[in-house]
Amino acid sequence: MRYEEFTIEGRNAVIEAFRAGKPIDKLLILDGAQDGPIQTIKREAKKHGTIVKFVTNERLDQLSETGKHQGVIAYTAAYEYAQVEDILAAAREKNEPPFVILLDNIEDPHNLGAIIRTANLAGVHGVIIPKNRAAGLTATVAKASAGALNYTPVARVTNLSKTMEDLKKEGLWFVCADMGGTSMYQLDLTGPIGLVIGNEGDGVGRLVKERCDFVASIPMKGDIDSLNASVAAGVLAYEIVRQKNAEKAFFIGGNCDGKL
Amino acid sequence: MRYEEFTIEGRNAVIEAFRAGKPIDKLLILDGAQDGPIQTIKREAKKHGTIVKFVTNERLDQLSETGKHQGVIAYTAAYEYAQVEDILAAAREKNEPPFVILLDNIEDPHNLGAIIRTANLAGVHGVIIPKNRAAGLTATVAKASAGALNYTPVARVTNLSKTMEDLKKEGLWFVCADMGGTSMYQLDLTGPIGLVIGNEGDGVGRLVKERCDFVASIPMKGDIDSLNASVAAGVLAYEIVRQKNAEKAFFIGGNCDGKL
Repeated sequence: MRYEEFTIEGRNAVIEAFRAGKPIDKLLILDGAQDGPIQTIKREAKKHGTIVKFVTNERLDQLSETGKHQGVIAYTAAYEYAQVEDILAAAREKNEPPFVILLDNIEDPHNLGAIIRTANLAGVHGVIIPKNRAAGLTATVAKASAGALNYTPVARVTNLSKTMEDLKKEGLWFVCADMGGTSMYQLDLTGPIGLVIGNEGDGVGRLVKERCDFVASIPMKGDIDSLNASVAAGVLAYEIVRQKNAEKAFFIGGNCDGKL
Repeated sequence: MRYEEFTIEGRNAVIEAFRAGKPIDKLLILDGAQDGPIQTIKREAKKHGTIVKFVTNERLDQLSETGKHQGVIAYTAAYEYAQVEDILAAAREKNEPPFVILLDNIEDPHNLGAIIRTANLAGVHGVIIPKNRAAGLTATVAKASAGALNYTPVARVTNLSKTMEDLKKEGLWFVCADMGGTSMYQLDLTGPIGLVIGNEGDGVGRLVKERCDFVASIPMKGDIDSLNASVAAGVLAYEIVRQKNAEKAFFIGGNCDGKL
């Protein structure tokens, strides 16, 4: 599987890419261009929730690999996004309650990669990311994931809170990582669960937070505000792993302190 | 005590530095920047009599070490490495058993910064790094630490395994993070403890590993080999926090499942 970021240049090539269902991460369009093909591209971009930036001709010339951009350059990852349904199917296949990580606008590709890496090792069935603003699956993400991107499905959705509503119908409940919530040690984090991690600077957005059943906080003793987003995701994911293991040990005869 | 030239970049890092009372010699601010954090920085600079220069974005880009100056670079005379004794003193002062993180050649400054950030929030009394090969305290580390470098002492030693021998005489015991050890959930991680995290590629070195009392492993279900070093440090540090809390709860009347 390849993850290099490709550019697709020229009007027809970009229109074809949209029609073939290629996942396009970002689109650069010549500022002020209004002709038919450009309007078609804008419509397709809107339909697919693609990020569009309007730039100068000089900028396009600079970024163009072919020298024939015709006013439009699209960026696509060679990586294929999964569907949310694929993630649920992976859980069913393993006969496990779904364990999903949702990222509400992680912007740093190193964080995204590190979280996919953690997801793979913590037994998470898949990662869900939103289309807007957030980092997509680029070569940097693939590298930071240390190969996990080959195994752990990543779905990209238009509306994260809508997806959460749908997943609630599948029996999932959601715990959102944020300050001022209940200590993660006090919450029961077993069963079919979605762990929601917020943006590096702004945390979890209001709409997404409203969809969460609980707010879980990592106990903090220090002088500063918050952990690095990928570290916070790791600490919470492993608290979930610990509780799932302790529950299993309890049923097969675990000891009093909940350790395996 | 050792001194190095030191720049602090980024709004939060600079605000934290002022608040922690770090002596800032000179401040470069993007000409025309007027937002809230910049106003806070200007106020702090005035309060502390710091020299402020307003410069262009190009100039900031040129001087930036991290590439992420966010419109502000501060120059501080020096960053002070702590002594190992300062870390033990910090524990004594808080009347807590020493909790130390030792890094056996972390090379990526983002990882080093993220680990110092975690250390601060997990109540670790200090971080010990070796002189050779490993990342030292640079502007990139300070930024990735999100201000934690102002609060959490970092000592740099010539010989990590020798330092471990000395600390054993002070009653510390050492747990080393590595594959093939005992599950961290099965180990008793309370008391005066040193958590040893290895190099990103090579793990913990042989000599250092020989000084460890236990090898603790994070349970891994996935397809790849290992977590990101700063995520592994976070997961293990918080398993230690959990056990310390559970122990406290036990003594003050905790319930059977060890949760607070």
